[in-house]
Amino acid sequence: MTFSRVVALAGGVGGAKLATGLQAALPPGALTVVVNTGDDFEHWGLTICPDLDTVIYNLAGIHNPATGWGRAHETGHVLQAMSELGGEDWFRLGDRDLALHLRRTEWLRQGISLSEVTDRLRRGFGIPSTVLPMCDEPVRTLVHTDEGDLPFQHYFVRRRCEPLLIDLSYVGAEEARVPDVVHEAIRAAQVIVFCPSNPYLSLDPILSVPSMRRLLRDARAWKIAVTPIVGGEAIKGPAAKMMREMGQMISPLTVVDHFADLLDAFVLDNADGVLHDAVQLPTLITDTIMADLESKRRLAQEVLDFVAGLDGSGNLPATPPDARLPASS
Amino acid sequence: MTFSRVVALAGGVGGAKLATGLQAALPPGALTVVVNTGDDFEHWGLTICPDLDTVIYNLAGIHNPATGWGRAHETGHVLQAMSELGGEDWFRLGDRDLALHLRRTEWLRQGISLSEVTDRLRRGFGIPSTVLPMCDEPVRTLVHTDEGDLPFQHYFVRRRCEPLLIDLSYVGAEEARVPDVVHEAIRAAQVIVFCPSNPYLSLDPILSVPSMRRLLRDARAWKIAVTPIVGGEAIKGPAAKMMREMGQMISPLTVVDHFADLLDAFVLDNADGVLHDAVQLPTLITDTIMADLESKRRLAQEVLDFVAGLDGSGNLPATPPDARLPASS
Repeated sequence: MTFSRVVALAGGVGGAKLATGLQAALPPGALTVVVNTGDDFEHWGLTICPDLDTVIYNLAGIHNPATGWGRAHETGHVLQAMSELGGEDWFRLGDRDLALHLRRTEWLRQGISLSEVTDRLRRGFGIPSTVLPMCDEPVRTLVHTDEGDLPFQHYFVRRRCEPLLIDLSYVGAEEARVPDVVHEAIRAAQVIVFCPSNPYLSLDPILSVPSMRRLLRDARAWKIAVTPIVGGEAIKGPAAKMMREMGQMISPLTVVDHFADLLDAFVLDNADGVLHDAVQLPTLITDTIMADLESKRRLAQEVLDFVAGLDGSGNLPATPPDARLPASS
Repeated sequence: MTFSRVVALAGGVGGAKLATGLQAALPPGALTVVVNTGDDFEHWGLTICPDLDTVIYNLAGIHNPATGWGRAHETGHVLQAMSELGGEDWFRLGDRDLALHLRRTEWLRQGISLSEVTDRLRRGFGIPSTVLPMCDEPVRTLVHTDEGDLPFQHYFVRRRCEPLLIDLSYVGAEEARVPDVVHEAIRAAQVIVFCPSNPYLSLDPILSVPSMRRLLRDARAWKIAVTPIVGGEAIKGPAAKMMREMGQMISPLTVVDHFADLLDAFVLDNADGVLHDAVQLPTLITDTIMADLESKRRLAQEVLDFVAGLDGSGNLPATPPDARLPASS
């Protein structure tokens, strides 16, 4: 079957890759990506939303394939001049990238919501999918470390995740609310994909928005997570290091446990096939490494096909997605 | 004699050239440039101060010698990306130039005055002279034309000065005040140079700040203007066109008349030597075209030497500059 309403929950590079695959596998307009904004910060007087930008650049096909974030064919002339002027130069903003931050910041200052700003930007880049921030209010991930509390980008970029992680908090989350457009997308979704993003840094901030967790749990969609841990390591980023420092097993099972009440199904990498029984959810075992557009599309298609083949057995929702849509939608 | 306290009143390119010459001719720190901010505007959510920037880039020696404004070795990658995003692209901001606008805007938003921001910037560029805006409050030149009222940059850049000029006003001037640092520099000045800038677009906005005209008239300095009109044409920009449209003679004499009560002396170009008697002020006749650093320095030195050679005759102040300083300074 072909799904027409799929929601992906995503952080940065890993989430953007699978979202790109889903966009390629689905009919135009079928995908809505709900994106972490806990990484957002103010820099050079501009509001920077790294995960939203990574998702947008990937969906537009103009991302830097070497890094996964930022734009292809990028230059750093503003950064160089800023550095010479004594400005902050530890966060490497590219010239072409900067246009997006300028445009977003100007709109936000005019009182336009981040949801609307993001929609204008994705349309500006000709992206057929809907891209939405997890909320319009600022939520900022704060990293509690052995060196004290660090704002996310200071931990992640400036200190390269070197301090020992103790805990995380999502400052401002209690004041945030799920935007109506996100609410509607999740309520109407046939499938909700938890992308292979960092559970603590990318997906937990999304879940920290009040009522988001219940909204997801109550959604009549098939909910499936793709493991960000393969063969005892994170595919990218500090997820494994963070699990170790928090006393967790570096394993896909830690991810399954983490989102336990929210998931109907799981995707393991071939490298971890032996964990199949331990997952205790319907599990797809496949190659989860996404190296190019074809492998992104292939993984997305496999995930969608796997969900389409699920029936009402086990702990899955009792009825297939289409029958489970609210009558009003 | 060597002057140690010289003030230059400047707009953009022409003023920046003579200011650069004065900086080269004077001891380090002797020059204060008071700059027009009537051209300032908001663009891409940033506060752009074109004349301040032109003066800063010229004094720092990093200006684009081909245009006189902007930076040398400049690129336009942000502009290109902004254009592709549907943003405004008629004002051609360069990448390196943008760092300055970002830095300034961030500081202004923090509540730091434009005077202080400008001082930080000129120090950041290693400029030995003081550079000051005419005021800290926003004053915006509005151009009344046969096509209606146009904000300055829309008239100047977007419409290339094509509409017929009727009149000018300096919106916000009545709310502005002369910054203390400008007040002190003018009070202490031995020489005040009216640079060869557009009288209507560059120098009149400075004079529109309440009490500025009286402050200049009462200053115990030698006040000398360098003609922006040579051989019946403006050296650069629309001054001649504007004179014609306002029914004025395209002549250095129009400039002399315009600033009559403020000037002690005048500088004519060799091309207009025949006007010497008509000026009715002590007049230096020389080559006023500034093509390179040496010609800027040479003209500045000639202006300073001419002033140094003036005595108390005619309509000049009765005593030489040093004797005329207030006892308190």
